[in-house]
Amino acid sequence: MKKTILLLFAIILYPNSSWSQDSKAQKSEINQKVSELLSKMSIEEKIGQMTQITVTNFEAKGKPGVFDIAKLREAIQTYHIGSILNVPNPGAPTIKKWNEVITTISNEANKTRLKIPVLYGIDAIHGSSYTAGATLFPQQIGIAATFNTEIARKGSEISAYETRASSIPWVFSPDLDLPRNPSWSRIWESFGEDAYLSSQMGKAMVEGFEGNNVASKYHVASCMKHFIGYGSTTTGKDRTPSIIPERVLRQFDLTIYQAAIKAGAKSIMVSSGEINGTPVHASKHLITDILKTELGFEGVVVTDWKDIIYLHSRHKVAETNRDAVRIAVLAGIDMSMVPEDYTFYTDLLDLVAKGEVPVSRIDDAVSRILQMKFKLNLFQDTVANLKDYPKFGSPEFINEAYNAAAESITLLKNNDAVLPLAKNEKILVTGPTANSMKYLNGGWSYNWQGENSDTYAADKFTILEALQDKAGHENVLYTQGADFATFNDAEIEKAVELGKSASKIILCLGEKNYTETPGDISNLYITEPQSRLALALSKLNKPIILVLNEGRPRLISNFEDKMNAVIQCYLPGNEGARALADILFGTINPSGKLPYNYPRYPNSLEKYNRKHTESLGDEEQNNDAQYEKSYSPQFEFGSGLSYTTFAYSNLKINKSEINDTDDLTVTVDVKNNGELAGKEAVLLYLSDNYASITPEVKALKRFTKISLAPNETKTIIFTLNQKDLQFVNNDLKWISEKGTFKIQIEKLTKEFLLK
Amino acid sequence: MKKTILLLFAIILYPNSSWSQDSKAQKSEINQKVSELLSKMSIEEKIGQMTQITVTNFEAKGKPGVFDIAKLREAIQTYHIGSILNVPNPGAPTIKKWNEVITTISNEANKTRLKIPVLYGIDAIHGSSYTAGATLFPQQIGIAATFNTEIARKGSEISAYETRASSIPWVFSPDLDLPRNPSWSRIWESFGEDAYLSSQMGKAMVEGFEGNNVASKYHVASCMKHFIGYGSTTTGKDRTPSIIPERVLRQFDLTIYQAAIKAGAKSIMVSSGEINGTPVHASKHLITDILKTELGFEGVVVTDWKDIIYLHSRHKVAETNRDAVRIAVLAGIDMSMVPEDYTFYTDLLDLVAKGEVPVSRIDDAVSRILQMKFKLNLFQDTVANLKDYPKFGSPEFINEAYNAAAESITLLKNNDAVLPLAKNEKILVTGPTANSMKYLNGGWSYNWQGENSDTYAADKFTILEALQDKAGHENVLYTQGADFATFNDAEIEKAVELGKSASKIILCLGEKNYTETPGDISNLYITEPQSRLALALSKLNKPIILVLNEGRPRLISNFEDKMNAVIQCYLPGNEGARALADILFGTINPSGKLPYNYPRYPNSLEKYNRKHTESLGDEEQNNDAQYEKSYSPQFEFGSGLSYTTFAYSNLKINKSEINDTDDLTVTVDVKNNGELAGKEAVLLYLSDNYASITPEVKALKRFTKISLAPNETKTIIFTLNQKDLQFVNNDLKWISEKGTFKIQIEKLTKEFLLK
Repeated sequence: MKKTILLLFAIILYPNSSWSQDSKAQKSEINQKVSELLSKMSIEEKIGQMTQITVTNFEAKGKPGVFDIAKLREAIQTYHIGSILNVPNPGAPTIKKWNEVITTISNEANKTRLKIPVLYGIDAIHGSSYTAGATLFPQQIGIAATFNTEIARKGSEISAYETRASSIPWVFSPDLDLPRNPSWSRIWESFGEDAYLSSQMGKAMVEGFEGNNVASKYHVASCMKHFIGYGSTTTGKDRTPSIIPERVLRQFDLTIYQAAIKAGAKSIMVSSGEINGTPVHASKHLITDILKTELGFEGVVVTDWKDIIYLHSRHKVAETNRDAVRIAVLAGIDMSMVPEDYTFYTDLLDLVAKGEVPVSRIDDAVSRILQMKFKLNLFQDTVANLKDYPKFGSPEFINEAYNAAAESITLLKNNDAVLPLAKNEKILVTGPTANSMKYLNGGWSYNWQGENSDTYAADKFTILEALQDKAGHENVLYTQGADFATFNDAEIEKAVELGKSASKIILCLGEKNYTETPGDISNLYITEPQSRLALALSKLNKPIILVLNEGRPRLISNFEDKMNAVIQCYLPGNEGARALADILFGTINPSGKLPYNYPRYPNSLEKYNRKHTESLGDEEQNNDAQYEKSYSPQFEFGSGLSYTTFAYSNLKINKSEINDTDDLTVTVDVKNNGELAGKEAVLLYLSDNYASITPEVKALKRFTKISLAPNETKTIIFTLNQKDLQFVNNDLKWISEKGTFKIQIEKLTKEFLLK
Repeated sequence: MKKTILLLFAIILYPNSSWSQDSKAQKSEINQKVSELLSKMSIEEKIGQMTQITVTNFEAKGKPGVFDIAKLREAIQTYHIGSILNVPNPGAPTIKKWNEVITTISNEANKTRLKIPVLYGIDAIHGSSYTAGATLFPQQIGIAATFNTEIARKGSEISAYETRASSIPWVFSPDLDLPRNPSWSRIWESFGEDAYLSSQMGKAMVEGFEGNNVASKYHVASCMKHFIGYGSTTTGKDRTPSIIPERVLRQFDLTIYQAAIKAGAKSIMVSSGEINGTPVHASKHLITDILKTELGFEGVVVTDWKDIIYLHSRHKVAETNRDAVRIAVLAGIDMSMVPEDYTFYTDLLDLVAKGEVPVSRIDDAVSRILQMKFKLNLFQDTVANLKDYPKFGSPEFINEAYNAAAESITLLKNNDAVLPLAKNEKILVTGPTANSMKYLNGGWSYNWQGENSDTYAADKFTILEALQDKAGHENVLYTQGADFATFNDAEIEKAVELGKSASKIILCLGEKNYTETPGDISNLYITEPQSRLALALSKLNKPIILVLNEGRPRLISNFEDKMNAVIQCYLPGNEGARALADILFGTINPSGKLPYNYPRYPNSLEKYNRKHTESLGDEEQNNDAQYEKSYSPQFEFGSGLSYTTFAYSNLKINKSEINDTDDLTVTVDVKNNGELAGKEAVLLYLSDNYASITPEVKALKRFTKISLAPNETKTIIFTLNQKDLQFVNNDLKWISEKGTFKIQIEKLTKEFLLK
């Protein structure tokens, strides 16, 4: 059996005529409406539109989640605010409650002179994660591990549906950060360390959110974030300085945004960080010159939380808050997530009155905001009709979340085929992540830090529960074994004691829930109470399956050699434990691949697309001073095992020499050599053998995910184009250079010449 | 008693009329000689001048250190080579042997048509470290810790003397790298993490090496290295990529070179690394445009070891070796440390013949080399008369090395005044660094990796020997206790057992000898066998004095709280152990201060001059997810205790508002409040409160080292100038901005306004 699949990939260059782009007629109609409305607006009404306030500001004192209508009225009537964000206390309303919230806001907006609807924005991060009962998917890092853009697209489609069911038309997603330090607390919100994978996944998510018609009641405006370089802080701490030369920014980070803009993304959120000494919120070069002018981005640029104020109080590039407002608005900010007072409004009014900010800049910002409101059809429809959303939280959606988790979970090690588990074997399940929903979901789940998942998702399976369900309670022993942070020798002893009665041990380690600054760490090693548990259990000489449930790759090199299998769950969401249990027992054949290098040591954080100087061989090590080898990640980007084996053969290219306009067709056969059906992500890497900017060892250029029955062979066809051969030179131009290139798929390689 | 010292500091801007700069008349005379000679030279002779070969290339087979004259003749007669470097096998000849080596080379050169002397260059790194019997000083990081530029100057004066005694006129020193990753293997060769401290120390060393007249028989040409950005690799591994935007390079790294160029440095070695994708050896922008044109550097630009070849084989910016030669020479390289073959010579000849490299570029390079040879008076004198060097290895010089070590050793912790030790107490000395000269000296000692210090410096004291000498053998217990890399429970037990008989424990931990790639590490923690020893000893509940003998700050946070005192020796050289013993017993009052932040955790490597966003307080930590605090180095830059106490008072400035041409005079009183005389490094920091490029929390702007008798007070006067208020903006210009600044000396602060 042999089939041929044709995969064509287009060049991503500049945004025009994209999938979800608005038609010309629509555009001109909306532009006209915007102009008309703008012409009627006072300067106060305009600046109000640019002001975004958190919904908790309008809460009645001592009454979580209850509006103080006077406060809401003041915001909308006095300050004319254009946007509200965030989740009411105590977090995660039902869609019915959301309906009431948005109705209250909408009613107030309808009492204003011009009846401009308030744009509500929400952190719907892995599904409609601030709505009770919504379908929660794996966090983005898991989506990346599927290497399946259809899963990304479908997931955000469902998220859009359930967010609109919550009467919210705007999500602060996808995350397009390109993290460069694995200890960063938001790695799991990104698609990992590769720019191409991130751009393909980001594009798919934007398409899923916005659909063909963002005005439809099943789609939402997306918000790319965090423009730009947010994920690259030098020390790994959140919101600390980044150093990224513009050449590097253009070659990697910017391409991800280009792809999402081309896919039609309606808005963008600015990075809270600084690049090379300039906070991005203060950078006219990045926001206006590059994003708006060069890339032609026509949507709304919104700040991140309090970030204009922080230009003064944290970054100290503005001597006063008022100065911070001037700097940010002149840099190109359209909307300020103020979000707890009206200083932005009053300061900006004063700046305009005194001629320090031109009205033209205000009109540009407000036009973008109004355009978005028109595109979202908010002037017609701001509150959802719940009857329109029968699939909210439905089995169909839940099944998609399960599929996503099943394709994301990554089998990194499986010595002596210790997995899958046999049906009736007795297992010990232990470890701090074994019995909690909040570690499966991570941050941005029901509330900011995600600490209430066990309440909101009480009906979902923890890893322990899923294994009990799968294997029968009688076959599952359990004790927590360890905490993340505190030492408990008694618990370790208990686990060891229980382990004696088990044939295999499922050791569930990882991290607690977190996001942003509270997730900062200073030591990438997994916490010591956990490694102690692992080492204690290893003395039993029973097979240990290490299940990692973590937002970032916490180091395990101090005990990894004693683990028989290692399986990375990332943060797989509400359905993750079921998917994991099915993989552990072989009902599902794992197919995830790592979207980052999993480091072995804390001060050896090389990326897979390192330079050749980072891969020097043993000859560079001196016998007198043998230290750890330079490049030796614990698990490399793209790693991921299956219960079947795939054989790659017949790597071919259609030309061994091409000129500077030719495409190149690459084919390869992949065969399932085992006895189980399986899915395989096929990854194509390219190497520029010599280049005037030191070339990467290899860079991912294409991927696709295929299914293969036992014995089945498929021929994969990839087409590379000239853009794929290019890099950004010191003049900030994309160029290619004559010479040889190498294509690599799995272990096969093929060279060709660019003449 | 109150004295006033006036300290004046000049603006460092561009090189002219500096301390060791040649007079105009000399210059023109030498220029004329160079022109004349150049006009007589064939292209082969010219390209030969640009070729530098390692001396071991001329060794007779199987006879270490013995010339094969035919090979030497071929190099000098056939290839016309202009320079030789490195140490003959098996390392570290005596001055007599050096005399023979250089005489042999000189004789061969005198047989050539034009009798151009061969320029011999050597890695004299902490003294004339490739000469047996030379005076070995603390490595540069220790010199930095003295905060005493006179010590730096004096040390390199002695190094120059002893290097010239070895008939060598050119040293590859000082190291002006600005390391940004504390795990880098060459931190100890630098002056630490502060650019101002580095520039002052580098300047002093250049002055010491070159003197007022570099042609004198007691001075040598210095070589600044490694231009530029070498110390800033992203991962910390040696010779791997750096990311440094030009703005940052100019604000920090470049200022160090500017100061050394102004001090008259005759040559410069290029960094083996890449910056932003461009290997420095391939960067015309950095070498020609910035270094030669903008900074006006008139000396010789030499490559590092094999680095032109590596442009092809490692960096892969050149498709062939020949191409690599073209790229490097056109970038501005004057001399190639080839150093093991003649490919550079043959390739460059061919490139010139085919017009790919203009003769004008060759003439520029050769002129610079010939100029240096004339300036060094090599046409007259190439071999030393040993009678001229009675002070070689003399007590006077050794005493200077002792003083340097004594001022460098840094007391970081001294709980309950556990130090100094009482005269007759019984001490246990233990740990892998307790009884070895090679760990005291580190790399670049007698040979590259420094593994033979115990042979060459057999007459010098190890820490154990110095303590036995100081305290009497009968009072010193010793066992090694641990190895760096292997576990030995028996040894730990032995140490613990011995500890029971001691009143205090001197625990000597650190690192083995290394430099460059063999010193790469992947884990900044001190090795585990060492921390196990520390933890085992701590259970004795006896006071432990941790003595660190290490090239870089290896993490000790897993046991530091159990140490009663911590004392950092760095790599203090041959006299270091005596100085340490004298400090431990209070004969010397310690006065060193840390020239870097000593990190607490491996993934929290903030610098002292961090940005404000890196110093967020506890309010940023979320109770739900308490992780390590963001900025909390184990010991901060500038830390260093004394056995006496100094009180700072009366911080004053002469104006609270200045205009953009004013200087600012800062005065402060420092009083010795204790009963012991002591030295104190007084450090002045400046903070720009708000700036358009995010300001540093603070930056060192001035320092001085003073001596104070008990009860003595001195008034220190510092003068700040406009340059001190400036930073490099995004247009790469040095600018200052109106607003408030803050001066900080110890805990005192004072604000002023720039109008």
